[in-house]
Amino acid sequence: MLKVAICGGSGYTGGELIRLLSNHPSVKITAVTSEKSSGKTVSDLFPHLSNHSNLTYEPLDREKLLKKADIFFLALPHAASQSAVDFFFRHGKKVIDLSADYRLRSPETYEEWYKTPHKFRGTLKKAVYGLPELHRAKIAKSSLIANPGCYPTGAILGLYPAIKTRLIDAESIIIDSTSGTTGAGRNADAAFSFCEVNEGFKAYSVASHRHTPEIEQELSAIAHKDLKVNFTPHLGSYDRGILTTIYAKLKKKADTRAVLDAYKKVFAKEPFIRALAEGKFPNVKNVRGTNLCDIGLAVNKRTNTLIIVTAIDNLMKGASGQAVHNMNIMMGFKETEGLKNIALFP
Amino acid sequence: MLKVAICGGSGYTGGELIRLLSNHPSVKITAVTSEKSSGKTVSDLFPHLSNHSNLTYEPLDREKLLKKADIFFLALPHAASQSAVDFFFRHGKKVIDLSADYRLRSPETYEEWYKTPHKFRGTLKKAVYGLPELHRAKIAKSSLIANPGCYPTGAILGLYPAIKTRLIDAESIIIDSTSGTTGAGRNADAAFSFCEVNEGFKAYSVASHRHTPEIEQELSAIAHKDLKVNFTPHLGSYDRGILTTIYAKLKKKADTRAVLDAYKKVFAKEPFIRALAEGKFPNVKNVRGTNLCDIGLAVNKRTNTLIIVTAIDNLMKGASGQAVHNMNIMMGFKETEGLKNIALFP
Amino acid sequence: MLKVAICGGSGYTGGELIRLLSNHPSVKITAVTSEKSSGKTVSDLFPHLSNHSNLTYEPLDREKLLKKADIFFLALPHAASQSAVDFFFRHGKKVIDLSADYRLRSPETYEEWYKTPHKFRGTLKKAVYGLPELHRAKIAKSSLIANPGCYPTGAILGLYPAIKTRLIDAESIIIDSTSGTTGAGRNADAAFSFCEVNEGFKAYSVASHRHTPEIEQELSAIAHKDLKVNFTPHLGSYDRGILTTIYAKLKKKADTRAVLDAYKKVFAKEPFIRALAEGKFPNVKNVRGTNLCDIGLAVNKRTNTLIIVTAIDNLMKGASGQAVHNMNIMMGFKETEGLKNIALFP
Amino acid sequence: MLKVAICGGSGYTGGELIRLLSNHPSVKITAVTSEKSSGKTVSDLFPHLSNHSNLTYEPLDREKLLKKADIFFLALPHAASQSAVDFFFRHGKKVIDLSADYRLRSPETYEEWYKTPHKFRGTLKKAVYGLPELHRAKIAKSSLIANPGCYPTGAILGLYPAIKTRLIDAESIIIDSTSGTTGAGRNADAAFSFCEVNEGFKAYSVASHRHTPEIEQELSAIAHKDLKVNFTPHLGSYDRGILTTIYAKLKKKADTRAVLDAYKKVFAKEPFIRALAEGKFPNVKNVRGTNLCDIGLAVNKRTNTLIIVTAIDNLMKGASGQAVHNMNIMMGFKETEGLKNIALFP
Repeated sequence: MLKVAICGGSGYTGGELIRLLSNHPSVKITAVTSEKSSGKTVSDLFPHLSNHSNLTYEPLDREKLLKKADIFFLALPHAASQSAVDFFFRHGKKVIDLSADYRLRSPETYEEWYKTPHKFRGTLKKAVYGLPELHRAKIAKSSLIANPGCYPTGAILGLYPAIKTRLIDAESIIIDSTSGTTGAGRNADAAFSFCEVNEGFKAYSVASHRHTPEIEQELSAIAHKDLKVNFTPHLGSYDRGILTTIYAKLKKKADTRAVLDAYKKVFAKEPFIRALAEGKFPNVKNVRGTNLCDIGLAVNKRTNTLIIVTAIDNLMKGASGQAVHNMNIMMGFKETEGLKNIALFP
Repeated sequence: MLKVAICGGSGYTGGELIRLLSNHPSVKITAVTSEKSSGKTVSDLFPHLSNHSNLTYEPLDREKLLKKADIFFLALPHAASQSAVDFFFRHGKKVIDLSADYRLRSPETYEEWYKTPHKFRGTLKKAVYGLPELHRAKIAKSSLIANPGCYPTGAILGLYPAIKTRLIDAESIIIDSTSGTTGAGRNADAAFSFCEVNEGFKAYSVASHRHTPEIEQELSAIAHKDLKVNFTPHLGSYDRGILTTIYAKLKKKADTRAVLDAYKKVFAKEPFIRALAEGKFPNVKNVRGTNLCDIGLAVNKRTNTLIIVTAIDNLMKGASGQAVHNMNIMMGFKETEGLKNIALFP
Repeated sequence: MLKVAICGGSGYTGGELIRLLSNHPSVKITAVTSEKSSGKTVSDLFPHLSNHSNLTYEPLDREKLLKKADIFFLALPHAASQSAVDFFFRHGKKVIDLSADYRLRSPETYEEWYKTPHKFRGTLKKAVYGLPELHRAKIAKSSLIANPGCYPTGAILGLYPAIKTRLIDAESIIIDSTSGTTGAGRNADAAFSFCEVNEGFKAYSVASHRHTPEIEQELSAIAHKDLKVNFTPHLGSYDRGILTTIYAKLKKKADTRAVLDAYKKVFAKEPFIRALAEGKFPNVKNVRGTNLCDIGLAVNKRTNTLIIVTAIDNLMKGASGQAVHNMNIMMGFKETEGLKNIALFP
Repeated sequence: MLKVAICGGSGYTGGELIRLLSNHPSVKITAVTSEKSSGKTVSDLFPHLSNHSNLTYEPLDREKLLKKADIFFLALPHAASQSAVDFFFRHGKKVIDLSADYRLRSPETYEEWYKTPHKFRGTLKKAVYGLPELHRAKIAKSSLIANPGCYPTGAILGLYPAIKTRLIDAESIIIDSTSGTTGAGRNADAAFSFCEVNEGFKAYSVASHRHTPEIEQELSAIAHKDLKVNFTPHLGSYDRGILTTIYAKLKKKADTRAVLDAYKKVFAKEPFIRALAEGKFPNVKNVRGTNLCDIGLAVNKRTNTLIIVTAIDNLMKGASGQAVHNMNIMMGFKETEGLKNIALFP
């Protein structure tokens, strides 16, 4: 049994990691950390897990944790993750970092968007961006995975085949996303209280969201040229799921069926991608609680535009599920192990 | 007191018309029609109106209705409205049609999108598109108002100043909207049952929604050239409100403040438009139950794109509220009469 | 114009007071206070009110406020209200206190449930419990109104006719209530964040809620004997409204219609009570945004039990609406002035 | 592999059966029926199941189905189930009926509440009420299980220890429940459309709900005397889960801890019951998607009343999960097989 530690296990992504890893046949959770909730148990914070974990939260004492686990999932706040990742990685542990700290290859870009310098440039170079559909081979050989952001996961997967097959003008991309409120984390913040969010709908971080450079980094790599994209997130009054609607000009005439076929071909062997039939479009409700990414698309012939829609569960494919997927690849486990949950509908 | 008849008064827009007109000091509702609910009272269908209307629904008997009212609000299904509008208009009545039947000036375009011919081309020519911010003077002189669609209202108001002042490349417009579920009407349809909609989020009518030509007609008129737009509607799991996020390339460099100033100038005297301060963006929750349209915007300098966000209540500014506004203009009433409700928050 | 000050105007009840009083023809809001938001404007905290108030929050400086207003609405936290109420009352102002501080006539009971002594017993004796349907005459003559709690309002109104007409065994009362989440106020509290509340349903403060003695005080007065009741509140995943389902043994056989007739008779002249027809039951959705209390009931002949269901909007009839109603009575205004809003449905 | 047929597989309970049985290691679904959706596939109706079932709905042709399966789950409408159950049972199949048709032992009581006679009295006598915590031994030996109703499951489990240990006056029971909207099924019914349910809360079937005699039957059997109860269901604006708050007079003084201990003792070996710690109460959110029943309770010493609160997922422990549990017991499988899902939170 692989021994797993979860650093920062009191938030929603931490709770999901415990849910998934509790049912994973090849691992055992040996430690969960939380500064604020140190001394409390998993059941105290997550009554739904009471039958599955009797672990007690402990402070993140690096030396102590080193002895407890073989692989470390870090669900710490951005910036706070930098040094912990570096520490465990340098001590020969496998690390999957769910923060943004090791996602951007350029430390300058990181500093520009996260307003703090990256202090571990050597370690940063070792990190692999953990989107399995793009980087499976590298993930398998890596010990340090930067788990992708939630919005980038839905956006990049939606655009990957179109850019790769040169269907679209990659400079015309517009990405419009809506996330459920779990994306804001589990905090005491009046702005995310029930009555402020419920029955509301709004855009936020317009033209300034930190996931923008992450999306651009990966799309640029696919396109082999520097891209800038428009990305606008919206806050949806529901718990889980990101729906991403993407617009891009087609380079040449194409019909919906042909584009769909191209997508199906690219993703043919992917266990977690469902390219939907022509005329069908995703709903976050159909992937809730799963590691799936559903994709639908249509060509708008009147405007010569490809419209792609993807749906993921932001806590799963957008965070903890993808992290477990990455672990499975790194460890040589079956890729779907621990990730066989069927969506809860309704 | 102006005598008002509401034809098709059993749906949500009908209910809103009754709510608004019940509190309007210069009108009296004298008839409400419904084929299906004929014989039932307003209170039967809308318990919240029980203190305000004791009217009984009657079938739409044109001759009978002619004698009962001076002005007719028609909230009938598309196509069903054509001949009723023509009848009341020809008999000298004032008509405000909330269906799509008289919105498109080209009967060919109407037939293309609504799959049924327009049989009253003469009357169609007399119709004025009832968006007061664009067509106030014509509305004041007209007896036949085609009340705008909900999505077009939010989209056109968001783009009007930008196109009018030639800020943007009008051929690059992308309109991404989310509507609350009242937009689907009050019907027995499993697809809009609570459990199918709740906790879901999806796009629909991708590249094919019928409000597209309506938006294009009005934007083309502002731009003085034929425009095609991308328009994608989404279904939000909340009751009321449309948020529209619009993307367009800037023709020249501009900053957010300058664009906002241009918007504030264009809308300076409008009683129902609130152009928000820099850095502020609309939330449907802030306009709920009102006839307001909130507008926020930002220039994305990295991509040279203007991003405009508008919020309206689809049943109010997107339907019944705008209809009452049109009536006020037609009748010479104070424009805000009957429309002074403050948003219900939360 | 009556000059009104709102002390504690940054929460949901404060926001509702501003909404209602802004549309009231006989009053003018001259001051709003908030320690935390001092210096901010009403629009900063409540964008939906931006067209209606340009007031700036100020700290609660008693001497300064004395000169600004004739009547004071206090929406301060429990205990914090005690001394402010006393101050304004002693200086000859009219005071409507929305906290619990002056509701319980017995200072001992107050201390038992609120864990803090009552320091203004003399002033406490002058307070009138502001439930107009029970105490209209006293309210009209009073200068100090203890505005009822939200749960007590729905519970007492539901039981008043049944106890008054001696229909039920007043010692068998069980009160089961569900409140929308606005009842928890506008705070940064993780327990009331969207994702914790949404899709959840739970009981809380079981056998221990502070509104219990308030309900008992009023019911005991109606029954002319000391009563104890079971009261269980639940948290509903919606914004506004309290539904209260009440059970009591019938003293003698009675049928639903007869009991309903008794209720209709008792409430015949009440502008804000709607006793529903036989077979109809209330829904919080039908009273949203209004000062109404809807009441439905049924006799369960199998168990000889009367089941009464009431619905109010907790921010309106359960707080700010009732406060304005009390002001209208105190000042001799028309009782419905400022309270004519029709429910927003859906 | 046990061959399983699901008759009436197009509703929410059918969907849940497919979800659960698809992941069950010892069974294979060989047929799903639906008259209305005959010819469509499971994926057509339930996109979330597309990776798990490629079955096509077929009409309920009894003779044909006989050859296809060993055990039959029937999720048909009430009354429609009577004859199908009888047929499969007489032909030696194992049957688990999720309708109400075989739950009431008295055909007279059935007819009184369901307004249709029971035509298969002989078969009715063979049915076992499938609440494992009460009737495990009988279930193990039976071939015909009447799967309990959703409300009765939560109510009976909450009361079972209290009546069994003679803690309460069983004639004083009041049961107040709230169900998520999945309880209404997957139908085209305007009353359950999103906008009618959302932001609403109401009681329904007051003093007349059909689950009343089912609760009374089981409680009477525990108490060894005829009981009548008050039962009031409410409709909650969320998808899944029933919260039941129960009131009963204590026969003698007792404190919360002692009663909790009695509950824990009675349920000590139950895999799906969680009796919560003192001071903790259930939330439907903590059991969502699981077969668990959470129970919390408190003694109200002021009124000498025991207040018990239970939470279940109405589609799981209240329907399909319990049905699978019953199958496991009947077939000698491990009781938790196929039912190990952890709740999806949030």
